Amino acid sequence: MSLHTISVFVENHSGTLSRIAGLFSSRGYNIESLTVAETEDPTMSRMTIVVGGDEDIIEQVVKQLNRLIDVIKVIDLSNEQIVERELTLTRVSATNSTRHEIATIVTLFGGKIVAVSPTSVTVELTDTSSKIDDFISVIRPFGIKELIRTGKIALAQVKK
Amino acid sequence: MSLHTISVFVENHSGTLSRIAGLFSSRGYNIESLTVAETEDPTMSRMTIVVGGDEDIIEQVVKQLNRLIDVIKVIDLSNEQIVERELTLTRVSATNSTRHEIATIVTLFGGKIVAVSPTSVTVELTDTSSKIDDFISVIRPFGIKELIRTGKIALAQVKK
Repeated sequence: MSLHTISVFVENHSGTLSRIAGLFSSRGYNIESLTVAETEDPTMSRMTIVVGGDEDIIEQVVKQLNRLIDVIKVIDLSNEQIVERELTLTRVSATNSTRHEIATIVTLFGGKIVAVSPTSVTVELTDTSSKIDDFISVIRPFGIKELIRTGKIALAQVKK
Repeated sequence: MSLHTISVFVENHSGTLSRIAGLFSSRGYNIESLTVAETEDPTMSRMTIVVGGDEDIIEQVVKQLNRLIDVIKVIDLSNEQIVERELTLTRVSATNSTRHEIATIVTLFGGKIVAVSPTSVTVELTDTSSKIDDFISVIRPFGIKELIRTGKIALAQVKK
């Protein structure tokens, strides 16, 4: 089983998200992450869905999504060259003796410390999902108090 | 009507997202953005939902969310001090004569150009949702070819 990234353009109607999520769950497809937000056109939202499954399962998903009312366009990015990013906010336990080590790791990953308390630092990091996984595994031994990820967003690269 | 930010911790079961989205749509609540992804605990996902509505409507939403199976915890961040961030990828039209101006704007906003083609640049920007709105309005005159936002994620600030 591999992970596939699907972009779905939908009209901003009440119930669209529920219908799309329902389509996945009723067929037992496992959504790894999902983001939905407005685009530059306020009548349209854009979703990025990361879903696990075989090639033929994804083909079915795309077909079924295309049949849904309110779905304007579906792009399967699985076999495309993409620009992909994800954002995480992580609150890490920190003491006077570990704060410096943590700051070094954050700098190495190109992240940013956005809040500091006597017992923690809050880190913002934007990178590929796989780099964020790496960051989490490096920072975990310090103690993760809270962690939130957006899930992946992705654009197809411009064709040469 | 104002915007409210709600954090929902859910167990990773098929159908959870659909039930939650259905709760909002069946009551006519307008979801502005939603993100869902795994946390550091792989059996649990964390959602951030931005929803429009009056104070008493949000109170109802939180109550109804708490009644759903698979919902572990709901935090209404509306009246909390929060750290909030959103990520956008924007592909902007660019020519030899405008590329420099665009790069200046990206630098001013603390963004990053992550891909360049003969006719466009792709910008990654992480900031508050309101700063991202500002960026989009400043960059729009150059021509937005594609735009994708994650929707807001947020953590409550540590209490003093």
